[in-house]
Amino acid sequence: MVIKYDIGKNKYRNWIVGETDFKPEYPGKFETIFTLGNGYMGVRAATEETYREETRGCYIAGLFDKFPGEVTELANIPDWLNIEIKLDGEKFDLKTGKILSYQRQINIKDGQLIRNIEWESPTSRKTRLTFERFVSLDNIHFAALKVKIIPLNYSGAIEICSGINGQTTNSGVQHFKEGRLRFSSEGIISMTSRTQESNIGLVIAAKHRFYLNGKILEEKEGIGSQRRKIFLSSRYKIKQNEEFIFKKMVTVYTTRDPDFKEKEKVSDKEIEKAAVDNLKKLIETGYNNLFEAHKERWNQLWEQIDITLDGPDFDQLAIRFSQFHIYQMTPVHDGRLSIAAKGLSGEGYKGHIFWDMEIFILPFLIYTFPEIAKRLLFYRYHFLDGAREKAKENGFEGAMYPWECADTGCEVTPKWGGVDFKTGKPQRIWTGELEQHITCDIVYSIWHYFQATCDYDFMYNYGLEIILETSRFWASRLEYNPEKDQYEINDVTGPDEYSEHINNNTFTNYMVKWQLNKTIQFSEWVKMNQLEVWKKVTSKIKFTFNELSDWKEKADKIYIGMDKASGFIHQYEGFTDKKEVDLLKYKGKVGAIAQDYNWEEITQMQVLKQSDIIMLLYLLGDDFSQETKRLNWGYYEPKTLHDSSLSPSIHAIVALDIEDVEKGYEYFERSIRIDLGENLKSSWDGLHAASLGGNWQAVVYGFGGVRITNKGRLRINPHLPEKWKNLKFKINWRGEKYSIEITKNKITLKPLSSISRSLLVEIYGKDYFLHPNEILKVTY
Amino acid sequence: MVIKYDIGKNKYRNWIVGETDFKPEYPGKFETIFTLGNGYMGVRAATEETYREETRGCYIAGLFDKFPGEVTELANIPDWLNIEIKLDGEKFDLKTGKILSYQRQINIKDGQLIRNIEWESPTSRKTRLTFERFVSLDNIHFAALKVKIIPLNYSGAIEICSGINGQTTNSGVQHFKEGRLRFSSEGIISMTSRTQESNIGLVIAAKHRFYLNGKILEEKEGIGSQRRKIFLSSRYKIKQNEEFIFKKMVTVYTTRDPDFKEKEKVSDKEIEKAAVDNLKKLIETGYNNLFEAHKERWNQLWEQIDITLDGPDFDQLAIRFSQFHIYQMTPVHDGRLSIAAKGLSGEGYKGHIFWDMEIFILPFLIYTFPEIAKRLLFYRYHFLDGAREKAKENGFEGAMYPWECADTGCEVTPKWGGVDFKTGKPQRIWTGELEQHITCDIVYSIWHYFQATCDYDFMYNYGLEIILETSRFWASRLEYNPEKDQYEINDVTGPDEYSEHINNNTFTNYMVKWQLNKTIQFSEWVKMNQLEVWKKVTSKIKFTFNELSDWKEKADKIYIGMDKASGFIHQYEGFTDKKEVDLLKYKGKVGAIAQDYNWEEITQMQVLKQSDIIMLLYLLGDDFSQETKRLNWGYYEPKTLHDSSLSPSIHAIVALDIEDVEKGYEYFERSIRIDLGENLKSSWDGLHAASLGGNWQAVVYGFGGVRITNKGRLRINPHLPEKWKNLKFKINWRGEKYSIEITKNKITLKPLSSISRSLLVEIYGKDYFLHPNEILKVTY
Repeated sequence: MVIKYDIGKNKYRNWIVGETDFKPEYPGKFETIFTLGNGYMGVRAATEETYREETRGCYIAGLFDKFPGEVTELANIPDWLNIEIKLDGEKFDLKTGKILSYQRQINIKDGQLIRNIEWESPTSRKTRLTFERFVSLDNIHFAALKVKIIPLNYSGAIEICSGINGQTTNSGVQHFKEGRLRFSSEGIISMTSRTQESNIGLVIAAKHRFYLNGKILEEKEGIGSQRRKIFLSSRYKIKQNEEFIFKKMVTVYTTRDPDFKEKEKVSDKEIEKAAVDNLKKLIETGYNNLFEAHKERWNQLWEQIDITLDGPDFDQLAIRFSQFHIYQMTPVHDGRLSIAAKGLSGEGYKGHIFWDMEIFILPFLIYTFPEIAKRLLFYRYHFLDGAREKAKENGFEGAMYPWECADTGCEVTPKWGGVDFKTGKPQRIWTGELEQHITCDIVYSIWHYFQATCDYDFMYNYGLEIILETSRFWASRLEYNPEKDQYEINDVTGPDEYSEHINNNTFTNYMVKWQLNKTIQFSEWVKMNQLEVWKKVTSKIKFTFNELSDWKEKADKIYIGMDKASGFIHQYEGFTDKKEVDLLKYKGKVGAIAQDYNWEEITQMQVLKQSDIIMLLYLLGDDFSQETKRLNWGYYEPKTLHDSSLSPSIHAIVALDIEDVEKGYEYFERSIRIDLGENLKSSWDGLHAASLGGNWQAVVYGFGGVRITNKGRLRINPHLPEKWKNLKFKINWRGEKYSIEITKNKITLKPLSSISRSLLVEIYGKDYFLHPNEILKVTY
Repeated sequence: MVIKYDIGKNKYRNWIVGETDFKPEYPGKFETIFTLGNGYMGVRAATEETYREETRGCYIAGLFDKFPGEVTELANIPDWLNIEIKLDGEKFDLKTGKILSYQRQINIKDGQLIRNIEWESPTSRKTRLTFERFVSLDNIHFAALKVKIIPLNYSGAIEICSGINGQTTNSGVQHFKEGRLRFSSEGIISMTSRTQESNIGLVIAAKHRFYLNGKILEEKEGIGSQRRKIFLSSRYKIKQNEEFIFKKMVTVYTTRDPDFKEKEKVSDKEIEKAAVDNLKKLIETGYNNLFEAHKERWNQLWEQIDITLDGPDFDQLAIRFSQFHIYQMTPVHDGRLSIAAKGLSGEGYKGHIFWDMEIFILPFLIYTFPEIAKRLLFYRYHFLDGAREKAKENGFEGAMYPWECADTGCEVTPKWGGVDFKTGKPQRIWTGELEQHITCDIVYSIWHYFQATCDYDFMYNYGLEIILETSRFWASRLEYNPEKDQYEINDVTGPDEYSEHINNNTFTNYMVKWQLNKTIQFSEWVKMNQLEVWKKVTSKIKFTFNELSDWKEKADKIYIGMDKASGFIHQYEGFTDKKEVDLLKYKGKVGAIAQDYNWEEITQMQVLKQSDIIMLLYLLGDDFSQETKRLNWGYYEPKTLHDSSLSPSIHAIVALDIEDVEKGYEYFERSIRIDLGENLKSSWDGLHAASLGGNWQAVVYGFGGVRITNKGRLRINPHLPEKWKNLKFKINWRGEKYSIEITKNKITLKPLSSISRSLLVEIYGKDYFLHPNEILKVTY
């Protein structure tokens, strides 16, 4: 095993992921899974010294830019991590000399990355080096690192060359203009630049400090600069066994930060001042105090969100790892942002926001930080105009959300992908045009949030407008088939991307029908109970009540490809007629099928990347009987390759819903290994944020069995796996917080504050009340 | 010694530069000095496998682009060199495992780069690898490489991953749009893209071939693509001691190539077709035949240009090295191009053209390939409008050439440089505004060319217009000082850039006076002898004869800061009043002074980067007596740091002119080490083309003593250094070619064709005639 999961001992047991071998050929995996972030910035775990295989990356939430001829993407900002170290004249480079001991670990309890090395140089100089790094949760603009160096068998000069390198790119694409380099009398260096097209200003300021045997050393740094680079070089002579420490503190600001939100235009000077002023204060406070404050914030956070289980250590670690990374990528500081498919951990999917956000990531936040969940949904409201634009461009009414979204709300899905190995030409990417289900996915998550929080304010101010406008889109999108007197949706792609340009995709049709009905129901309720709100919203969007009756008629007549007698659901018209292929050799090997078949061929086979129907059975589970679920599971599950990281967690939940606990656990074990597992070739371009959110759902919705019923009630039907003795977690439900403990035969439900109302909860088909000041224990 | 100069044996003696140790910390030096090129493209000698310290670079002459907010630069094109090799599962990486033997060499006779390695992998697999590479002189669009692999103590799979990587940048700046990737049924991959701003299309096409023990292997390549990358992966099992060969052939075309010069617009498809069609033909011909044709071209070339000397091997090698690289960077294929300060060998000075071209590089071409020299001068005519534009922008008349020139003739000198270590702010670069002497330097070189070739056609069609327009500029630029009744030129910088914003810089004033007088003289001659020409040119530029008399008056009154009595020449007004500093600690260490003083301080001291006055004594040597030369040498030489690579060769020549042969040789030895010497920290960003040209001049003008007298005659006053027994070279002089052999006391001058006229040549103050069908031998 290359990844070590058992490094954490005592209070850090199941809190640490590490490696004990230097694997220069697989830096990408570790750069990603050891990413540090605070929702404002994400810093891939590139090493201080550079290696040819690396992908250095640092991203700021919302810092998008568009290179000519390409789609908008999250820009890789200048690198502040790189430090070149010379030990008595020899460059520190783990590819040379001999590694005597090596350990790198991410401590997810404290939010710290640590690397311990004993290295023997090519000329036999032995040195102990420790690297520590954190990205502050306490001051989002701040990150810092510390290097400790002890020469073990020699005395000599330690040379440090460290600075800010703006030569970094997104795989060769440069988003920043050259900008300005500065060096101040206080020894602070800075680089200020603006993005090419979006014209966002960015400043990085850095300050170094040096210590020998605990005592601060006089700074004697030489300044240097090259194109897009500013750096400081220093040289200190130290003796054998002395302890040399180098600290680097960095602040980062952009002109789009909420810090400046009252200003129309923010100048480079203003952000420079903010960065330098903040840095000066932080220098006063000192590295150690700043790290303690950061650690304290993480520890407090874990008090609120930690899920514990009495079961295999890996399971415990994995669920924490999932929560750690989701929180690290959550922009709690800014209501105009959302979470990308890779968070802030890599270039994959260009920092774009997909349905991954609403369907996979959001539930964790809805049930732990509903206020944050609200902000993230606000992102969709903020960019409603972009969705209106897309609807208009496509000849529809209302609002049609983009499949991939960045900084404007407009569609940013690239149109071309890699070269097809059979045609020799680039593949056309159709998802931006065809994965229209994103629009109902967003409505689903708004409804989900609303059900779990009863946040009427959100619905009145934002939600209602979204659901009306998006329903308007669907009403105009539906195609009437006079022969069959039914409404159809043709030429789409469902969640399963191995089928495209399909007609009457049941997932889409069913979700649209559901959305229209929910919108009608909620609209009627608002009109009846909150006429002022109704008037305000409908007059804004020029909505007439007639539209509702039109929707009613249409919703009733939407074609759903389900065999009423058997309960079999057709993924889409014609799926069952497609070619069947023996999938055995592709199972468990993500993407392996693409080595034998090209894209065109794959879309003509009965093979699923992830399953539409299983997803539907999950999202609207109460609509389907256990028999229907089992029948469709039996048909689709064997045909699904899980080539999407979104697939296993959903399969885990549905397996548990149909009480196949073994299969459920199997899928869970697969899902939690997507990023954290041993496959060193995966995750290079970023975390699979949806799978991390899916892991949380598999635990709380799957094993925990928490769900909202069709009646809008809380239900808890747990199914603990064989290997787990118990499971404890906390959820927010309609303004109150509860702890839930589950064992094999008992649920203990405890309010964490003095609740004002009784809570009605359904457990295994029976209703129970948790009354104020009580604890509910149910044995089954 | 890290660089090996004595690798070449027998017929390759003094034809090979090599290294026998792998020095991963200093790749830049070797990437530059081992650059291969053919005037169309230049390919830095990056290794096939990548290392973190490298700077991969491939440049196409004239392929300029401008990144927003920066100045135009030569764009680094996608990398076609990179090949990742796996040997029985282990990545070939010289930083790992053990190097059993290593040798890399550039063969400048044949134009080939060769690397021989025996490498033991970390798991003790031993392999012999040979890499060969050439950039064809025979087909400028073509380059190729060959890798030979022999497993010495194992049998196993050889994996090759090779392609085209468009993630390359100019130090982080991306000039190309994403472009198109293609893979054809013939196994040809290609990448086509356009520059961001200049909209030049570029295509690179590549084809692989594999051989086992001399027999061609069936191609079984898997295609892959990533962002801006296309590559082919293949895997062959081979046995111990078998010989596996991999060949990669590449063609490169751009839409601005002369191949398409008749077309207004050239499409991507057209260049793709050209690249693929050419490549297919080349594949037919085969690698070995293609290499032979290329080698033959080099060998023929050497017949024409080789300079031989009976002296230290290093001197012999160095002069060949200089010629080799100048020829490699000379765009013989295109009359709209010139030669940049770094040729096509690196990013330094952004591929811009300076006076380095006319004053340093051109003489070699004037005397060996006058037709090519003419084309290069045509570049200045081609961009005369840019110079007119610059004059206008600055409120002057006529044509004012830019200090740095690229693809439009407009000024492209950047305005800001690195961070000043005292002020902490970027330094303002003033050369674009102040180094106005470039305009007379260009006129000087036109006159030089004209004198050496008697190419009246060039003068009538291009030269006259340039000298009139630039003289017009100077006439409007001169400032009248009524108090002194003299014309002055204030606020300039001369060749010595350690003084700026100076008044009455003698180099500039003197050259302007010279230029005006030469222009007047030639104009009068043309008017008298070629009235039609005169009318044509003057009517085109609306020139009136009155202007000439105005120039006459002005030229007479230009202030020259020379003490008539002593002959001392003031570099500029006030130079001798500036602070004197002990320069001893900075001598011989290029740029060392900048570690103690910042730019502002340096400009206030009596310190020279290179010497204006020595340069003047060289360019217009016949104007000054030996006493004047010696006096000024004695004053300026000790104050000169030679922090410019342009300095030593000129000092060599002037030292020889004043018959200080020892000093002359000393400076020559310094000049030929600028790129070729042992300093591994120099030359990283490209060759010092001017110094290479200067080396040729030091040999032919300095030791050879060849010069054009003020009367326009050929003079040969040789001064062989102590260590040289003889020196042989060839020159073109006014349409004829001669060989010149010099020993310590004899000159042998031989026409290389049957000359039609007798040649008058001045040797040590006496005139001699070389008559047709004779050989002139002069003993002294």
